[in-house]
Amino acid sequence: MVVLVVNAGSSSLKYQLLDMESESVIAKGNCDRIGIGGHISHKTSDGRVYEADCDFPTHTEAFEKLVSVLATGDAKVIDSMSQINAVGHRVVHGAEIFKEATVITDDVIEKISSLSELAPVHNPAHVLALKACRKVLPDAPMVGVFDTAFHQTMPPKAYMMGFPYADYENYGVRKYGFHGTSHRFVTAALAKALGKDIKDLKIISCHMGNGSSITAVKGGQSVDTTMGFTPLDGVIMGTRCGSVDPSAVTYLMDKHGFTPSRMSDYMNKESGLLGISGISSDNRDVTAACAEGNQRAILANEMLKYDTKKDIGAFAAVMNGVDAVIFTGGIGENDAAIRGDVCKDMEYLGIKIDDEVNSKTRGTLTRISAADSKVEVWVVPTNEELLIARDTVAVVESLCAAK
Amino acid sequence: MVVLVVNAGSSSLKYQLLDMESESVIAKGNCDRIGIGGHISHKTSDGRVYEADCDFPTHTEAFEKLVSVLATGDAKVIDSMSQINAVGHRVVHGAEIFKEATVITDDVIEKISSLSELAPVHNPAHVLALKACRKVLPDAPMVGVFDTAFHQTMPPKAYMMGFPYADYENYGVRKYGFHGTSHRFVTAALAKALGKDIKDLKIISCHMGNGSSITAVKGGQSVDTTMGFTPLDGVIMGTRCGSVDPSAVTYLMDKHGFTPSRMSDYMNKESGLLGISGISSDNRDVTAACAEGNQRAILANEMLKYDTKKDIGAFAAVMNGVDAVIFTGGIGENDAAIRGDVCKDMEYLGIKIDDEVNSKTRGTLTRISAADSKVEVWVVPTNEELLIARDTVAVVESLCAAK
Repeated sequence: MVVLVVNAGSSSLKYQLLDMESESVIAKGNCDRIGIGGHISHKTSDGRVYEADCDFPTHTEAFEKLVSVLATGDAKVIDSMSQINAVGHRVVHGAEIFKEATVITDDVIEKISSLSELAPVHNPAHVLALKACRKVLPDAPMVGVFDTAFHQTMPPKAYMMGFPYADYENYGVRKYGFHGTSHRFVTAALAKALGKDIKDLKIISCHMGNGSSITAVKGGQSVDTTMGFTPLDGVIMGTRCGSVDPSAVTYLMDKHGFTPSRMSDYMNKESGLLGISGISSDNRDVTAACAEGNQRAILANEMLKYDTKKDIGAFAAVMNGVDAVIFTGGIGENDAAIRGDVCKDMEYLGIKIDDEVNSKTRGTLTRISAADSKVEVWVVPTNEELLIARDTVAVVESLCAAK
Repeated sequence: MVVLVVNAGSSSLKYQLLDMESESVIAKGNCDRIGIGGHISHKTSDGRVYEADCDFPTHTEAFEKLVSVLATGDAKVIDSMSQINAVGHRVVHGAEIFKEATVITDDVIEKISSLSELAPVHNPAHVLALKACRKVLPDAPMVGVFDTAFHQTMPPKAYMMGFPYADYENYGVRKYGFHGTSHRFVTAALAKALGKDIKDLKIISCHMGNGSSITAVKGGQSVDTTMGFTPLDGVIMGTRCGSVDPSAVTYLMDKHGFTPSRMSDYMNKESGLLGISGISSDNRDVTAACAEGNQRAILANEMLKYDTKKDIGAFAAVMNGVDAVIFTGGIGENDAAIRGDVCKDMEYLGIKIDDEVNSKTRGTLTRISAADSKVEVWVVPTNEELLIARDTVAVVESLCAAK
């Protein structure tokens, strides 16, 4: 089966075409500047490249272009669009409605749209992309794979916040959790690498990148996670403040004269590593500045490591211990110093890092804990697109079986 | 030395008179309805009681009354106000200025007043009480003991929040921590009970009451705590929401049309156990409703235990292990079921409760962990007034020594 995986933003369409016999990428690319111009970057697995400025008034034209690039011209990888057997769409917010990957129908699109208030940047873009995709590829079944779905197994004591209960009933204010596809992918990959049944494992998965979330996965199910109602909560991130005293939110709104919407932008886009370091939201820039002795960069870096360490501790308590810790995402896969410092002075849990192995590991599935560490610590590269494609195959096959 | 300890609110003055040779309470009471009427309840340690409606236009009249009740009439315990050797005042917020108990001068009162924005309910009341006390007891040295002082040893990675750095510089937005006097008292008391030097101990102190905070105390110093910029952050409390996704704050303000000040009230006074259970802010009412099977009460109770368990886990990570866990405060000293459930399924840390001892323990210094528990778990009754009095004696004696 050939699956097109789509990750749509308000002005972009990232895509991968995967051959699911071999689980390999055939081609991938990005349509961006949708609505404000248009550009496509496309690359095949055998190294052919296609780049062009385009006219993308809407997501529909972007879909038409990417399908045409896949099926025609110098960088083509299929003979016709009919070879795309299914399309898997990443959807950020599924709230309590979508607990698993779901075949896309009009009703599902309507429901994704109804959740726009919970993900105002993402869900409306997904709806546009879903409608455009159906127009351009009317015969390919589409499947929605939700970032939040994996966390729907959290118990109420973990997902409820301390506001009046009516705010949960009327406005859906609770912890949803995000990065679910990544956490599900890496925990399954680790269980496989360990040769163990995931049902027998307590894993703490640290997805650390521009956005970061830590998740407690017990027996293959998410039991708690650091991101909350939105992807703002939890550890400090590139531009996101992470957890703060809620009273500081109202205090600073008052001081700055901010509306709720302006304060939301402030916490989501101007805070975090950028706000503390004053240098950059990019961890690589921050660590470079640390190396030069920049005190605020060092503080930002320490805050990220400290938050992560505390969450590992908290989730070990939630699960009564931990068998394995995973580092994934842009920072988790590539920043050995952060991994090492997070795991330093954690002998009480039985964590012991092999510093030499850790220092050499970048983006490959590798055990970085010492042979005598009680807790396995691994770098596991994430691959959300592959999991979306796998889910898509599974949903489509179950559809076919039901027919 | 005889020390008067004062805990002033905007309309109340709680007081204790202590004999510091024996560290015993001579008399205690409360002046309330200051500014809106006036009432005094007074009780001596030998059981005499004085109750009266009064006229307390300001804190000054309340001080005059309490001194007169102490020194004259049927419930008198001293012959004249000159027998009060010193006055210790509880002060909620000392920010970064006051790192320890401090003798009260005009300059200190001015500084406490300057911190009113950080503690708008408490610090202005303290200033009124300090000025009134000086008027009524001009010859007694006064000492301020700050709730925040004990936490001034936290490192920046623990006390900084992920907002832009300028919010720390310009508005003092950081974690301060509260209940410091209580955490300091119970950790010192536990070290004494264990016959160990507090410098060698890693203690997690759970002060659980109408307000709750958990503190990591390493070598006698606070290294992290759950309350933050204000006493709102951390575990769910009677009417306080505790930690929530900061984006839910702005989201709910938008939904409810709340100003920052209204939202602050909502989170501080209408949320927490009250908001979730819909029954009461009082843990005793909530647990009574749990016993009747009320689902929202059960949820509130579970959230409190779950938050506390996570914080114990997080602070064990911060300190690379824990030697002892303390329960104190109204809930911590009296609710055996909550203590037991918080400590349940914590074998990974080496925590094992003696259920029988735990179930019988109410408000007495008692080890509730099993003999073979690696981590000592104790109920330690708090006594903030005694510590304020001890600090007052120490400051006054060092003043005298310096003269």
